[in-house]
Amino acid sequence: MPQQRLKKAMENLRVVLVATRNPLNMGAVARAMSNFGAHQLRVVNPYQKAYREAVSAVGASTVLREAQEFRSVKEAVADCSLVVGTTAIRHREIKHPMRSLDKAGPLLRKWLAKGKVALLFGSEKWGLSNEDLSYCHWVLHVPTRAEQPSMNLGQAAAVCLYEIARGRRSREEGTQKGPARMETVERITESLLECLKRSGYVAARSEQLAEVKLRRLVRRWTLDEADAEVFLGMVRKMEGRLPSVKGPK
Amino acid sequence: MPQQRLKKAMENLRVVLVATRNPLNMGAVARAMSNFGAHQLRVVNPYQKAYREAVSAVGASTVLREAQEFRSVKEAVADCSLVVGTTAIRHREIKHPMRSLDKAGPLLRKWLAKGKVALLFGSEKWGLSNEDLSYCHWVLHVPTRAEQPSMNLGQAAAVCLYEIARGRRSREEGTQKGPARMETVERITESLLECLKRSGYVAARSEQLAEVKLRRLVRRWTLDEADAEVFLGMVRKMEGRLPSVKGPK
Repeated sequence: MPQQRLKKAMENLRVVLVATRNPLNMGAVARAMSNFGAHQLRVVNPYQKAYREAVSAVGASTVLREAQEFRSVKEAVADCSLVVGTTAIRHREIKHPMRSLDKAGPLLRKWLAKGKVALLFGSEKWGLSNEDLSYCHWVLHVPTRAEQPSMNLGQAAAVCLYEIARGRRSREEGTQKGPARMETVERITESLLECLKRSGYVAARSEQLAEVKLRRLVRRWTLDEADAEVFLGMVRKMEGRLPSVKGPK
Repeated sequence: MPQQRLKKAMENLRVVLVATRNPLNMGAVARAMSNFGAHQLRVVNPYQKAYREAVSAVGASTVLREAQEFRSVKEAVADCSLVVGTTAIRHREIKHPMRSLDKAGPLLRKWLAKGKVALLFGSEKWGLSNEDLSYCHWVLHVPTRAEQPSMNLGQAAAVCLYEIARGRRSREEGTQKGPARMETVERITESLLECLKRSGYVAARSEQLAEVKLRRLVRRWTLDEADAEVFLGMVRKMEGRLPSVKGPK
């Protein structure tokens, strides 16, 4: 990828730290971002003391000082058209499509050439929760030894950014429309969930599980924005015609 | 590179830390080594207090506890057949052949398949001295932004080790479901069209055009079979709850 285009692509990357505990790790992620030309850091529910400490540290980088704080993953990824989680795998059975970093790199560059991409890192202790992952289109892992798969957060971020910034591949010229924004995709999810409740597909007591599953399902479709808007219109129309569910007394 | 050979190659790598100051960095380098299957850490003239602290830390890794200490670079690389230094470049004019990490990776793997290779990292503050470099066959650098070339030591090591271990088999293979069969996709299309008619999204007179558009739309989603079956169930359920359209008289 030509340098100017690579530079622009890296600027489309949003690194999202979810529930990070250690201020040194936040600093390390920000430093790696600066090394590889990604500038937009977003933090979701950081341990407040750690976050304040990191941001106010002497020599805190511009990336860290300009980080944006969000209360939920949903808000942090709303303007992105692709959301990718990271995992060391061992913690849970991942239901998402999984790509190793070396295969994910070219794909991420392709998306970054067209629009904003969020790359999520979970907390040092637990990684990303199933709910966090439900906002992701797919998940990447760094291929490590099975005996010691779990990487330090700052190092995992550095390795991912190095691979994404790898400058060798030429970009495929895209003829497609832009990918759907997460805001639209989430609206589809919400409206479709309401349809499923109204039609009796989803029972009230299992609503939360259904919502997470549905969110994953809709994200696997990788809609483009034009299609997503059309589909949203369809789902809304159906929602309006389905009998509304009686709320609990 | 086949997995067994890669494993053996990584075991031939000696990571050499010269005059490292920060015990956290030593710990971070050791952790990345463990992640990527390099086990032999060598330290040259570490700041003694930092080194003792790192080695004796609770949870210090096997790699760190088994690190070997040397008084000079010369001794630390004596049994290696290739010695490679690392640098952020900016500090001095390097007289050595210089390779970027992505080009250095395949070369290092080739050497590692045959014998021991030392990879040197300098101190956090000064990098490798000219004297340290005089023991190196060539020098590698991680391609970073010119404005911020200097990487954190633990992160630089992680990125180098990731690149050298490239080719490690990822654990993703064979977990993905197959793509949806056209039969299922067409059933979705038919049922969704019926929903759209029943909800008034599609008027009877424009039905044919709508059907063609809808068919294209659904096919652009590139569903896999499992997702397609779930979605078909959803759409069918909605169809059953929507009021049926009166046929023409």
